[in-house]
Amino acid sequence: MKGIFITFEGIDGCGKSTQCELLKDYLKDNGKDFIFVREPGGTAIGERIREILLDKKNSRMTARTELLLFEAARAQITDEVIKPALEEGKIVICDRFFDSSSAYQGMARGMGMDFVAGLNMAATGGLKPDVTFFFDISAEEALARRGKRGEASDRIELAGLKFQEDVRKGYLELASNSDGRIVTIDATLGIDEIFNVVIESLKGKI
Amino acid sequence: MKGIFITFEGIDGCGKSTQCELLKDYLKDNGKDFIFVREPGGTAIGERIREILLDKKNSRMTARTELLLFEAARAQITDEVIKPALEEGKIVICDRFFDSSSAYQGMARGMGMDFVAGLNMAATGGLKPDVTFFFDISAEEALARRGKRGEASDRIELAGLKFQEDVRKGYLELASNSDGRIVTIDATLGIDEIFNVVIESLKGKI
Repeated sequence: MKGIFITFEGIDGCGKSTQCELLKDYLKDNGKDFIFVREPGGTAIGERIREILLDKKNSRMTARTELLLFEAARAQITDEVIKPALEEGKIVICDRFFDSSSAYQGMARGMGMDFVAGLNMAATGGLKPDVTFFFDISAEEALARRGKRGEASDRIELAGLKFQEDVRKGYLELASNSDGRIVTIDATLGIDEIFNVVIESLKGKI
Repeated sequence: MKGIFITFEGIDGCGKSTQCELLKDYLKDNGKDFIFVREPGGTAIGERIREILLDKKNSRMTARTELLLFEAARAQITDEVIKPALEEGKIVICDRFFDSSSAYQGMARGMGMDFVAGLNMAATGGLKPDVTFFFDISAEEALARRGKRGEASDRIELAGLKFQEDVRKGYLELASNSDGRIVTIDATLGIDEIFNVVIESLKGKI
């Protein structure tokens, strides 16, 4: 793989979308060849899977089904979009990737981090991000931020505060076992301050 | 589990739907408490997954995505429908279950039977059919039967003769390693003759 694969992770309201936008602008201004994708979705098939996942009507969805749908969308975007772009030497930025499944389904839904790691591997055929930014914030602070944006907007956001705190625990565990792949950033810092950490971490890589 | 879980397997055109109908009639006539479901589908969520799988527009779907979508639909029907029915002591008849993934994706799509077995386990949490009927027929004979029903009707049927023959090979391998769970029936026999084998195999179980 000639390109570089960068993923953004964190609980809802952690500010990662803002940072994604800043990085996109930075790469554009510096004439870099990059693509930006989001999970779940990013392909025609993935967007249809995303609709099923976020539909509030699907309240009977089991944890196993949820996980397998995320993995299916991931398999598609990996083979259809991410791998070809990396092979062409592009920078690939992905808003959420398999660490989300480990944190949300493995930890917070209690399915087990190892169980999810196995499915992550099955979905991606072993592809791993080169750098992952984890924007760390407490569930309460994130909720306060989301509150400003209005009510919980989908089935997953409805799951509440305790759930988000468990997701965060999952991310912290992943970060401590990532051999440096996951860069943890204090998401309560100012937007520019956070972005400086992102850019510093990518120096020499992009 | 107090009920009994019966699955029907085989390549398209093997006649299993006809046998499903006969068994349903038989159980009705004998006052048995049963449910009939089909894979993929059988739940609101599963039907939406089924639409994605069968849509001819989704020609870019990778083998991994296809497999994970089947497993997602399977996870949902297992926990939402099959397990509760079995716990209530019902007979559950399922038109296709995890052996389909092993034969279609594991063998015919070349993903590996062991790889698929792992995902089958992940999706079902270990639930296995008590009896599986495999209706064995050559791909050519099955195609001739399907021909009478008109053109290939969905994305998966379009994959052709060689593919169906590989699926058959997968089923034969599964049957030879199933410790008696899979009952192989010559699907070129007459409809009544086949149904007699089905009923004989279920004696003492239903």
